Amino acid sequence: MDIPYKIYLNEEEMPKAWYNIKADMKEQHDPFLHPATGKPCTKEDLLPVFCEELIDQELNTTDRFIEIPEEIRNFYRMFRPSPVVRAYCLEKALDTPARIFYKFEGANTSGSHKLNSAAAQVYYAKKQGITHLTTETGAGQWGTALSMACAYFDVDLTVYMVKGSALQKPYRKSIMETYGAKVISSPSDTTEVGRKILEENPDTSGSLGCAISEAIETSVKTENCRYVLGSVLDHVLMHQSVIGLEAKIALDKYGVYPDVVIGCAGGGSNLGGLISAYMADKLQGKKAPKFIAVEPLSCPSLSRGKYAYDFGDTGQITPLIKMYTLGAGFMPAPNYAGGLRYHGMSPVISKLYHDGFIDEVRAEEQRRVFDAATLFARVEGTLPAPESAHAIRVAIDEALACKETGEAKDILFGLTGTGYFDMTAYASYHEGTMSDYIPSDEELEASFAKLPKVE
Amino acid sequence: MDIPYKIYLNEEEMPKAWYNIKADMKEQHDPFLHPATGKPCTKEDLLPVFCEELIDQELNTTDRFIEIPEEIRNFYRMFRPSPVVRAYCLEKALDTPARIFYKFEGANTSGSHKLNSAAAQVYYAKKQGITHLTTETGAGQWGTALSMACAYFDVDLTVYMVKGSALQKPYRKSIMETYGAKVISSPSDTTEVGRKILEENPDTSGSLGCAISEAIETSVKTENCRYVLGSVLDHVLMHQSVIGLEAKIALDKYGVYPDVVIGCAGGGSNLGGLISAYMADKLQGKKAPKFIAVEPLSCPSLSRGKYAYDFGDTGQITPLIKMYTLGAGFMPAPNYAGGLRYHGMSPVISKLYHDGFIDEVRAEEQRRVFDAATLFARVEGTLPAPESAHAIRVAIDEALACKETGEAKDILFGLTGTGYFDMTAYASYHEGTMSDYIPSDEELEASFAKLPKVE
Repeated sequence: MDIPYKIYLNEEEMPKAWYNIKADMKEQHDPFLHPATGKPCTKEDLLPVFCEELIDQELNTTDRFIEIPEEIRNFYRMFRPSPVVRAYCLEKALDTPARIFYKFEGANTSGSHKLNSAAAQVYYAKKQGITHLTTETGAGQWGTALSMACAYFDVDLTVYMVKGSALQKPYRKSIMETYGAKVISSPSDTTEVGRKILEENPDTSGSLGCAISEAIETSVKTENCRYVLGSVLDHVLMHQSVIGLEAKIALDKYGVYPDVVIGCAGGGSNLGGLISAYMADKLQGKKAPKFIAVEPLSCPSLSRGKYAYDFGDTGQITPLIKMYTLGAGFMPAPNYAGGLRYHGMSPVISKLYHDGFIDEVRAEEQRRVFDAATLFARVEGTLPAPESAHAIRVAIDEALACKETGEAKDILFGLTGTGYFDMTAYASYHEGTMSDYIPSDEELEASFAKLPKVE
Repeated sequence: MDIPYKIYLNEEEMPKAWYNIKADMKEQHDPFLHPATGKPCTKEDLLPVFCEELIDQELNTTDRFIEIPEEIRNFYRMFRPSPVVRAYCLEKALDTPARIFYKFEGANTSGSHKLNSAAAQVYYAKKQGITHLTTETGAGQWGTALSMACAYFDVDLTVYMVKGSALQKPYRKSIMETYGAKVISSPSDTTEVGRKILEENPDTSGSLGCAISEAIETSVKTENCRYVLGSVLDHVLMHQSVIGLEAKIALDKYGVYPDVVIGCAGGGSNLGGLISAYMADKLQGKKAPKFIAVEPLSCPSLSRGKYAYDFGDTGQITPLIKMYTLGAGFMPAPNYAGGLRYHGMSPVISKLYHDGFIDEVRAEEQRRVFDAATLFARVEGTLPAPESAHAIRVAIDEALACKETGEAKDILFGLTGTGYFDMTAYASYHEGTMSDYIPSDEELEASFAKLPKVE
């Protein structure tokens, strides 16, 4: 049977339940610790900040599948199912015996996979009677996705946007405002933690860690308000499992079982979602693909970070999370993949990598990433987001390796989003002014020295 | 049978031939006239400027269907078939008994339907051995689409971009450059006609008419080069027939025959494509939908233009075209729908309107258009291009009229593109600084007075 360029599922074939990978993990990641007591966080500890049903999902380690409520599935129908695309043109351009597939999550206005979790989180907030949400955004994809979901479910939203990103991408602010959100550049003078950071470092371009601190502080101080997060947390990864579940259904139809699955990793939610259905095989001891995570050289949390307890934010107000981290105080150099500029990593992804279930991590240089992005755009049409281009880089490298060895591997990667709001980055690449910054060992050691002490 | 949110065709169901509406028109539009002789243009007259096979298509009034070459269909597979979407959420928000459908052509990097014709035109140029193409772009969608097609088929491209649009949308330039095109703001000093226009009016923000003149001049002066146009011409409308053919196949599956079909009209190619399959019914005397064309109040070529011979460009170097026109010298006020700022109109659309086959034209005010765009974005998710929002405005008005009368009409409109590069417009709307300019009767009369005299 010929494989089409794009494999679309019917709406009836869309997953009706999320896959909770933790139910298949023999060992769970270490629990969140309360920053004041150092003791594992209880549901009650988390209730003032997070929506209740999301906490239940976060702490659920037993149910393999959790039903997707019909209201969320109706929202999903506006932009899902998303296609698995056979990259025929890229294969031809590379002259590789490999077959390359990508799951394309960018064909919605938020421009990325983030809408999968935004739809779910706002639905549960609304159901709980919450009238206002706060969040942070780096590249702007999560903020846009959440704005769309809040417009759909009629919930107020305040977004703290990393200042560096806000300057690079002024139109991201306009689009969030079009969907009714209030957008504040972070660090800002609207919060205590923001004022403190600005006092210490007035010229900072901000970071996801700062913006998280500000969003949490505002949520706690606002009536009937909760904080929501676009990555890192277990429930976010679970919502993203629709990516992997759909990909497997689509590829199964054509008898394709990938040899390699490649995803970029910032907070880890896209990667966790993409690998979910195939990782289930591996956790059950079956044959499974090789899993490769890709991150930027400038913010190498998996490849050079410590596996340790750390704060999720710069302001040190979140619970302590056991994860690969560069230190909550680490300020990554500005790069053009704002979605990959986070000091930490999803605890589930961290645990899977630590225990050898994720096979490999590659840290990529920015210009090589844009070489791949530009080639991909020219031959496959779609202009990728810089984040996604990290996965493209490695997929191309794998396909070129197949050309050397003559192996006809099946490669699946995640095309998480589009680059329409990243034209400053593409212009910088095109004009030859793009550079990259790799943190020194000394910088990282200095950052690790400030990690919280946990007994 | 329940109608899904999105009706996708399989790749095998995609049209294998374009529909040539002229074969069904009992009367053809008047022929192009040579500007020097005043006589009908022959194929030979057009050969120095246009690709040969495109001229053959332009002059073909007999073949109802023209096969789409396999190479073009393979290109189409990267972004087609495009879905027909049932606007369930918009229907609910309007509380209307009407059913609203839209054919969504924006899910590709060019952000619009323009890629349908770009793929075809570049393919035929390449086949003829042409190595360089020139064109103009207003909103930037055509320029982007052509850049993508030229990257795919490996043909050089120079784009003259209307200066006002280039300033509003700097990132459009970057995206065309990413696909390898050379982009020049028009009017420019790279052509005689550009220098002349700048001398007379140094502060002009340009127009499509100017940019066309410059692109043609450059194509004639460059070796092995031809000029291509993104709208207006008959062959472009024919390429766009895939929109209407697919829409009808998709709706037929669910037993839906629209009562109203609504499209925005700039040069007319999207409208011509959208209505094609249903207009075939009307031309054959069968039951057919009501057809409504929508244009901006600031550039009302169909509703207030003259049906007369005129130049296609400001520099008066194109053949004379019988069409609805505001006069080739008419400079529309800057608005945010650059794709609808053309003084003329497709001769096929003009003829159909003149002869009563297109039932109605509406000219819409810019802020009312953005009211509709914003509502649509919030409830349907997708952020529309300002051009497309003209059709949304009228679709909403029709659906609201149904609410008054209780009629359950089936409404189909064309969502030609996305607004990712139009955030300046959305920000202006959001901030309340958006205005509109309606040309006075005196202005139009003065422009009509300069129309060329044709015996």
